[in-house]
Amino acid sequence: MEFATAAHVAETLEQLGFKVRLGTDACDASSRLGVPSKQLLDMAYHDALKAGAHPRILKKMRGGLTAVVADLPASDSAHTMAFRFDMDALPVAESDDLSHGPARLEFVSQLPGLMHACGHDAHTAIGLSLAARLAQDPPANSIRLLFQPAEEGCRGAIAMRNAGCVDGVDTLVCFHLGLGVPTGHVYSDSTGHLATTKFRVRLVGSAAHAGRAPEEGKNALLAACTAILNIHALPRYSHAITRVNVGHVSAPGAPNIVPATATFELETRAANEAVNKDLERRIHRIVEHSALMQDVQSEVEVIGSSTVIHCDDSLSTLIQTVARTVPGVTTIGTGWEAGGSEDASWLIREVQGQGGTGTYMVVGASSPGPHHSNQFDVDETALPIAVDLLDVIARAASRRT
Amino acid sequence: MEFATAAHVAETLEQLGFKVRLGTDACDASSRLGVPSKQLLDMAYHDALKAGAHPRILKKMRGGLTAVVADLPASDSAHTMAFRFDMDALPVAESDDLSHGPARLEFVSQLPGLMHACGHDAHTAIGLSLAARLAQDPPANSIRLLFQPAEEGCRGAIAMRNAGCVDGVDTLVCFHLGLGVPTGHVYSDSTGHLATTKFRVRLVGSAAHAGRAPEEGKNALLAACTAILNIHALPRYSHAITRVNVGHVSAPGAPNIVPATATFELETRAANEAVNKDLERRIHRIVEHSALMQDVQSEVEVIGSSTVIHCDDSLSTLIQTVARTVPGVTTIGTGWEAGGSEDASWLIREVQGQGGTGTYMVVGASSPGPHHSNQFDVDETALPIAVDLLDVIARAASRRT
Amino acid sequence: MEFATAAHVAETLEQLGFKVRLGTDACDASSRLGVPSKQLLDMAYHDALKAGAHPRILKKMRGGLTAVVADLPASDSAHTMAFRFDMDALPVAESDDLSHGPARLEFVSQLPGLMHACGHDAHTAIGLSLAARLAQDPPANSIRLLFQPAEEGCRGAIAMRNAGCVDGVDTLVCFHLGLGVPTGHVYSDSTGHLATTKFRVRLVGSAAHAGRAPEEGKNALLAACTAILNIHALPRYSHAITRVNVGHVSAPGAPNIVPATATFELETRAANEAVNKDLERRIHRIVEHSALMQDVQSEVEVIGSSTVIHCDDSLSTLIQTVARTVPGVTTIGTGWEAGGSEDASWLIREVQGQGGTGTYMVVGASSPGPHHSNQFDVDETALPIAVDLLDVIARAASRRT
Amino acid sequence: MEFATAAHVAETLEQLGFKVRLGTDACDASSRLGVPSKQLLDMAYHDALKAGAHPRILKKMRGGLTAVVADLPASDSAHTMAFRFDMDALPVAESDDLSHGPARLEFVSQLPGLMHACGHDAHTAIGLSLAARLAQDPPANSIRLLFQPAEEGCRGAIAMRNAGCVDGVDTLVCFHLGLGVPTGHVYSDSTGHLATTKFRVRLVGSAAHAGRAPEEGKNALLAACTAILNIHALPRYSHAITRVNVGHVSAPGAPNIVPATATFELETRAANEAVNKDLERRIHRIVEHSALMQDVQSEVEVIGSSTVIHCDDSLSTLIQTVARTVPGVTTIGTGWEAGGSEDASWLIREVQGQGGTGTYMVVGASSPGPHHSNQFDVDETALPIAVDLLDVIARAASRRT
Repeated sequence: MEFATAAHVAETLEQLGFKVRLGTDACDASSRLGVPSKQLLDMAYHDALKAGAHPRILKKMRGGLTAVVADLPASDSAHTMAFRFDMDALPVAESDDLSHGPARLEFVSQLPGLMHACGHDAHTAIGLSLAARLAQDPPANSIRLLFQPAEEGCRGAIAMRNAGCVDGVDTLVCFHLGLGVPTGHVYSDSTGHLATTKFRVRLVGSAAHAGRAPEEGKNALLAACTAILNIHALPRYSHAITRVNVGHVSAPGAPNIVPATATFELETRAANEAVNKDLERRIHRIVEHSALMQDVQSEVEVIGSSTVIHCDDSLSTLIQTVARTVPGVTTIGTGWEAGGSEDASWLIREVQGQGGTGTYMVVGASSPGPHHSNQFDVDETALPIAVDLLDVIARAASRRT
Repeated sequence: MEFATAAHVAETLEQLGFKVRLGTDACDASSRLGVPSKQLLDMAYHDALKAGAHPRILKKMRGGLTAVVADLPASDSAHTMAFRFDMDALPVAESDDLSHGPARLEFVSQLPGLMHACGHDAHTAIGLSLAARLAQDPPANSIRLLFQPAEEGCRGAIAMRNAGCVDGVDTLVCFHLGLGVPTGHVYSDSTGHLATTKFRVRLVGSAAHAGRAPEEGKNALLAACTAILNIHALPRYSHAITRVNVGHVSAPGAPNIVPATATFELETRAANEAVNKDLERRIHRIVEHSALMQDVQSEVEVIGSSTVIHCDDSLSTLIQTVARTVPGVTTIGTGWEAGGSEDASWLIREVQGQGGTGTYMVVGASSPGPHHSNQFDVDETALPIAVDLLDVIARAASRRT
Repeated sequence: MEFATAAHVAETLEQLGFKVRLGTDACDASSRLGVPSKQLLDMAYHDALKAGAHPRILKKMRGGLTAVVADLPASDSAHTMAFRFDMDALPVAESDDLSHGPARLEFVSQLPGLMHACGHDAHTAIGLSLAARLAQDPPANSIRLLFQPAEEGCRGAIAMRNAGCVDGVDTLVCFHLGLGVPTGHVYSDSTGHLATTKFRVRLVGSAAHAGRAPEEGKNALLAACTAILNIHALPRYSHAITRVNVGHVSAPGAPNIVPATATFELETRAANEAVNKDLERRIHRIVEHSALMQDVQSEVEVIGSSTVIHCDDSLSTLIQTVARTVPGVTTIGTGWEAGGSEDASWLIREVQGQGGTGTYMVVGASSPGPHHSNQFDVDETALPIAVDLLDVIARAASRRT
Repeated sequence: MEFATAAHVAETLEQLGFKVRLGTDACDASSRLGVPSKQLLDMAYHDALKAGAHPRILKKMRGGLTAVVADLPASDSAHTMAFRFDMDALPVAESDDLSHGPARLEFVSQLPGLMHACGHDAHTAIGLSLAARLAQDPPANSIRLLFQPAEEGCRGAIAMRNAGCVDGVDTLVCFHLGLGVPTGHVYSDSTGHLATTKFRVRLVGSAAHAGRAPEEGKNALLAACTAILNIHALPRYSHAITRVNVGHVSAPGAPNIVPATATFELETRAANEAVNKDLERRIHRIVEHSALMQDVQSEVEVIGSSTVIHCDDSLSTLIQTVARTVPGVTTIGTGWEAGGSEDASWLIREVQGQGGTGTYMVVGASSPGPHHSNQFDVDETALPIAVDLLDVIARAASRRT
């Protein structure tokens, strides 16, 4: 649903001279996970149109195909160096307390109930600044910039991978700002990203008048409550850290009607993929039988997915070397402990499968509030540091081919 | 939210010469239960304005004060005979299958997701037809017509009672069309209406990143699931039929965020008021401790209420006598078994407390689909029968003063 | 497990000249429900042997066949009048507080953890007193006395019925002492007995070390908890009073072992048999899927059963007539409201199916504590009243053939 | 309850010339956790007496004080070297399948329902063999042997510590046989032992007749089920591995009685003590409010506890050095990954607090079945290896003072 942002990104990159791929060229429609309803996508599309997005570009994105891939080719034989930026927002209502910088300075989110509570707007800004630098003074490497939608929920990367967006990439550098790391600190790689799967569950029973014929209902809500408690009660695993969470529930209706439908979303996470698969299997079992217990039908849809990340040491070492030359970088570390999930994992794995290398860096940016909270903000002095860092990486990598 | 309907009712009654009370004269604002949000009410208000509702009338109803009381006074000493009509719709999306009459004949509900799935539009139509008859040929009795909003959920009657709408009423006749009773059949009274209370529960905990810090969350959703299961698991009672149902749940968010809030609605019902009070007490206990178990805060609001109905035999007998004279009435019974709840109970109890009499009748109307289903429709031949019946009752009652 | 009591009953009846049927002649072994384990039955058997029970009689009862049927035949054509007495105790530890009569007078239960908390010992005493009276002064009717084991839990009657114990019975009178009815009051019939089914559920999963490999367990306890909550959360029914209760749970083990097994017992009750069948069907579904959710196996055994009772008016009227002649009977009523269940229902239904009549009376007996509580006691002045009443019924019934 | 074993141990050690402490000298009665009932302890006591245990020794152990501490002092200034052996069994019924060695060779457990499923009988045998060796050929070190009851459930060590059993100890060596490590392998230290707390929860409500007055009950079982599900649904923690398990549940009664009482046992585990404390706090909250939700009273007793273990490198290195000299030891490792809990942790921490050193070793012993299973057995060739190893450690340690 990032139409306006993506169209702006694409238009800017075109103007800078990048070769831009859009729509189905950047995003395999059928591989997308957890796609919003056509109605919501159409509303967002028209909102972007009204807000002045470029019609030709926007048209290609219709239906939510908002990925953007931009190439700045060097000579044919050049090493292809790729960077990935995620563009999406979170369903968090931004704080309007004046202690929150964006509120005080009046640049809070313009969309009620949505904000960039994870700094992905800064990622996009960094990507465009980097693009301008590279266009002005092209490096020896071929450059590819990936602007990805729908990182939150781990929904966008697979569709970009399946559209071939990382085909031919030799080196892929992904990164995140902040995450508790203060401005000036850089981690050249990270560890502990968890494999994850996100699900949407739909339960369908039958409504009935709760006073006159309660026994005629098939109660989808009771099925949901049983499933949710039992999902959280899944065992801890001896060989891997795990997580489970149900985080979005709706059983519409009225207190005098036995609830006919309930939907909820959930995620599993695990430090290795086999355990995550086992959790998936158990989720299916719990949902199926919680539903059947109430004579209710169930449907489980995968709406997001990522895997673990193994950063390449050689690339990490290279980054450490060049990072020292970047003004403002005061501390360089390795092995940032993730504890979360990232669908860049699918892109990195794909590049590694082609014989290339990849890493997931963290670039420090102090923030008064934690990620995913409504007090989240980004120290803006971190942005030029990040652009400088990516710039030297973009140029450095060529030396190692 | 019945602005357009209520404004139309009020305008018509004024034109017929009734003395009409509106707004705070018909509805005690602070006694209303389960009032929708100001935002929703304002949207509905403006929709009604756009749809052509009378601005002067509508203005008085602003904020949801949609009750209408209309008097047709006879001589000062006359017996006051009152009828009550409920006007509200249900959150059921009407069927567009052509086997559904209103779909075939193109008069399905104009508001998506809402329909008169319980025949209250027919009630309103009957009320206006009766008003026209009585205006044209006034009876010896003083007449009062009560058009009540928000019967579904048992929210509207108390506010009308507290505004004095049944003060001075000697006889109150309430009725419902259909309810499984075929066209031509009439029950002059009913039994087994259940006392009921409707609640809205709000649970507030704390959000947290489900991957990086699950232990920092206070999970309002788990509290809700525990409460919902335990509410349904309340004991059956030895001395009274009971019902419990949770019917509207929402815990918004995302699968990667520990849910900070959850809301749900529920109802209790019981064949006597003491048992209903005991259920209320237990609901409060279950909610409070389900929340505290997760270190979550809870708030329980009463959004609807009705009590049991004891119909007066003398009034029932009178109705049986006059009903025999109504063309189309083929069968007259007593003691229709309700099994549901009705907030007309508060109005009848008030009239009885003043020394008057009351009854709750059922007027047959065949329907292909059950009440509260999206196939619900009303046999229109039942409507003139109902008008005729109320007309003879309006005139007959005077004879017994 | 009532070996000593039953052997004493049989021996006494033999000595009084009754023709006594024992063992498989009085009890169809394969129809018994909820039979205790062979080990427990053998222990009880040997305890009775040690306590001095008659070896020849006891031997026939081995394995728990403790029903006793005694005939006192009149002429061949005589009307056969039967009375049924239940003999069993409850798993309630008797109070040793001195305010409890049996404690003060030192005749509390001799078996720790068991007591006659429902007055069935008084029933047995009444039966033997009646037997002595009838033997001494035989009535014109043929008499049959049924001493039934295992009424609590509704387990014994079907096995007696299937052994033919009520074959040829013209009139069957069953009764209960007390039940809140004070001494001197008699109800000649009752209403509202609920159909019931009792179940034992066994869940079998796999154990695992809870610290080192929790994910290897298949948790039978979680399956049990889910089932128990959902069983209690079954819907109320619109057409019949219902009850559900889970009342005996065990999941042995240790806190560091994932529980491999869990067993529990439960009952359903309903005011009509179709609803009880529907509850049974839902119980099976809940248990099956609660188990499968955890990859656990389940087994549901029926351990008790009774149906509704329709007392015959003619018999009730006869009893009212003769009860007036009994000294101490001060008040005679009909239609005592049961609210519980009785497996005498199967015997009464069988007699009625043969063209006979039956009733279930209540004979008043004041008690300081409620039935099934550890303070339960029986006002002993009620016993001779009961014996007198049954005596006149035994003689009166002959007049109506 | 290990009376016979402990008495045999004490008697043997006395005969070998050790100075033996028993009863309250070896075990602080009031610090014991999860003590069995007086009745059970008395039964076990008398069983041991009948089985021929030494009466003088046994008498000191009455009430379950079965710890044994034995000193073999060297010169006053000598280094005190201690070894700890656990003696207790598990509530697992031993397999009688002939593929199970002890069944084939007829030395299965003599106590039905109990077996040494964790090899603690082998530990005891090793301890006594070591004692014989050291008594025959005393080392330069002072020696202390600790024979501990109730390691399973982490109940015995605190009581020994509080009785001063490790006062004055310079070096404490604890160990376990097997644990998946094959015969011939030795780990000189271990890591990852989890802090744990074991609880017993008692819930007390009120019974009621489930048919006649279900609403009068206060259902302790529903409270238990709610608590158990919510305990398992506790969050995973971001900073430490955790475990929770409920493992022993009982709600006695009958299906027609609302359950008045329920008891269950549970454990928490965590890789650091602060997290374990946080889990404890949450357990208390869940239990309290699950109970209050049903108007039921609750009581939580701590019945077991252990903490994390930090083995001393210097001691581990010493052991590695001497282990190489032991015939049969083929492989020596460090840092065995525990994943479970050990109350030896309290003893090791106490010794370290006095300035001493400690370790927890694993001595390999192949077994066909896993620990805590009914197929568990110990490769007996591992026993002399273990004795030899402890023997060289007992002598070696002196060299480093």
